[in-house]
Amino acid sequence: MAVVPSTKVVAPLKDELDIVIPTIRNLDFLEMWRPFFEQYHLIIVQDGDPTKTIRVPDGFDYELYNRNDINRILGPKASCISFKDSACRCFGFMVSKKKYIFTIDDDCFVAKDPSGKEINALAQHIQNLLTPSTPFFFNTLYDPYREGADFVRGYPFSMREGAPTAISHGLWLNIPDYDAPTQLVKPRERNTRYVDAVLTIPKGTLFPMCGMNLGFDRELIGPAMYFGLMGDGQPIGRYDDMWAGWCAKVICDHLSLGVKTGLPYIWHSKASNPFVNLKKEYKGIYWQEEIIPFFQAVTLPKECTTVQKCYIELSKLVKEKLGHVDPYFQKLGDAMVTWIDAWDELNPPAVPATEPVAKKDGPPPKAK
Amino acid sequence: MAVVPSTKVVAPLKDELDIVIPTIRNLDFLEMWRPFFEQYHLIIVQDGDPTKTIRVPDGFDYELYNRNDINRILGPKASCISFKDSACRCFGFMVSKKKYIFTIDDDCFVAKDPSGKEINALAQHIQNLLTPSTPFFFNTLYDPYREGADFVRGYPFSMREGAPTAISHGLWLNIPDYDAPTQLVKPRERNTRYVDAVLTIPKGTLFPMCGMNLGFDRELIGPAMYFGLMGDGQPIGRYDDMWAGWCAKVICDHLSLGVKTGLPYIWHSKASNPFVNLKKEYKGIYWQEEIIPFFQAVTLPKECTTVQKCYIELSKLVKEKLGHVDPYFQKLGDAMVTWIDAWDELNPPAVPATEPVAKKDGPPPKAK
Repeated sequence: MAVVPSTKVVAPLKDELDIVIPTIRNLDFLEMWRPFFEQYHLIIVQDGDPTKTIRVPDGFDYELYNRNDINRILGPKASCISFKDSACRCFGFMVSKKKYIFTIDDDCFVAKDPSGKEINALAQHIQNLLTPSTPFFFNTLYDPYREGADFVRGYPFSMREGAPTAISHGLWLNIPDYDAPTQLVKPRERNTRYVDAVLTIPKGTLFPMCGMNLGFDRELIGPAMYFGLMGDGQPIGRYDDMWAGWCAKVICDHLSLGVKTGLPYIWHSKASNPFVNLKKEYKGIYWQEEIIPFFQAVTLPKECTTVQKCYIELSKLVKEKLGHVDPYFQKLGDAMVTWIDAWDELNPPAVPATEPVAKKDGPPPKAK
Repeated sequence: MAVVPSTKVVAPLKDELDIVIPTIRNLDFLEMWRPFFEQYHLIIVQDGDPTKTIRVPDGFDYELYNRNDINRILGPKASCISFKDSACRCFGFMVSKKKYIFTIDDDCFVAKDPSGKEINALAQHIQNLLTPSTPFFFNTLYDPYREGADFVRGYPFSMREGAPTAISHGLWLNIPDYDAPTQLVKPRERNTRYVDAVLTIPKGTLFPMCGMNLGFDRELIGPAMYFGLMGDGQPIGRYDDMWAGWCAKVICDHLSLGVKTGLPYIWHSKASNPFVNLKKEYKGIYWQEEIIPFFQAVTLPKECTTVQKCYIELSKLVKEKLGHVDPYFQKLGDAMVTWIDAWDELNPPAVPATEPVAKKDGPPPKAK
């Protein structure tokens, strides 16, 4: 498995990207990813019992946070980070200091393309993030920035610059990301179809964002990547990534940022238990019937010019418009505010060069 | 090429679908399509010199209309049908009496899938049209009704019935459908990427509809499939299908109908001359910068409950909002009304069973 230097995989953005992995077990799955990940820095968020030791294969550069670390770093604000749920991964997004994040689940392995070649999922995410999106008009030949493709006849020339890409949503071969009812009905269904496309999810369209294989630009959209209150002590689970996706998409649309889906595929090895999942999901399954129309109707005021401002506004709307669904949404709205407070504390905004510090009220921003 | 009965291709909907082909030349290209088309009825719209004889290979069941036929059938209303432009194909949509239309250009041949198998494009269009669309929410595993796929986690259950599919937009291998500037810049680019997906273009998103390889449900959307005023005597060409696509998409969105794009591919054999194309397109290239924002902003009143009513409303908006761009849009708005008049004349609305004819003013509707 060790890679000889001469065949070393080119590692684009290796100093500008962190790989975030939430886990409760030893990270043997990294062995398979070694050629693709070993030049990057890993942020491991250990879920569950903090006294347990998580083994990380030799040769990886990583930092690891368990629940005690999260509590120590965030103090009372740690309440916004979920426990006993992979939603805890968003703590890794917050402590990262890099521009880009790739996050992956520990039951995801390297997939092969139809020619049998191993897919460097991370490299594809980076390509997706470094090329523009096309949220304002649909291109029928998919990603127009890809080699061998372009904008088709009838695509307005003024829109061909596209929009900066904030999110790259990758897919899964083998076990598809189904909800518990579909898992129960179709226990043997496997995704075997390799669709060789990357496409932009148009402005105004929501999508179910899965956190299993996901890249994003932390500077563009990071503060919206909050995975909510799930798991221990909460009435719901398995909606962490969905929540982040709905919030992030609405904010991307408002700020004219792009969201791509499609390539890269990873190999998803293990279906989670559908009975356990049903218990976690069942409230979400009926709540989402009100949540989706809420997000479809959200419009953010034009004063919301940063992700943080958008997110705080969204937190108010969540409490106001979803509060009647369940008291949970009041708590979630509060947690969204706590999340932004914690984010800004760990990621103090740079003081603009044109704005002298002396003119500001109060103390200067904290050093990182 | 003749097909032995025992291997005869199953021909779904053969009594409910017409194949419409606009042409100026002998239809030798049909030989390659024989196994897939010969059980269907063809409507051939002969463009250009009506005294020329178009040869159709033996064994096909067809009707053929030249310009003299169009003038005879429509009288003064024939002014809405373009001459010397493939936009004339929409006359075929109007004279058809079938529920479904498949239209194809005569430089399109049978493509092969990655396994080398010939693609029955018509069968795939029919499958696209007979299964619902998902315009209200994006499914990341593409068409959820396809074998081996489904709705992913987080897709609201109340939206899983989808919407009736009105349009199936197929793609092209080999020569991509590029505008003249792109053709000039990339003369050698060929589309070699087979993307194994069908997807719904979300509600609220416009797309560039190409008429080369297109299926639709005539009962659901037929009257919106007007290909405009192009070619002889008009200031513009090669925007016929684009115009139809923008109008049809806005109306589909209003009426909650679906539009799919992706499979099937045809093999597009021959790039048209980019210099000739540039001359036809150049006004469209700058006009579309105003046309697209117009269509993106269009909202139709809820009183518009039929395609005809939507289309008449759209014709008014075209004159009102695009009239300043060029006098052409006044003429086009009028032609849109003429088109609907002609459509209704050839396709008299059925008298609802609950509404006695005797109670209506004026003469009973014309017999077909």
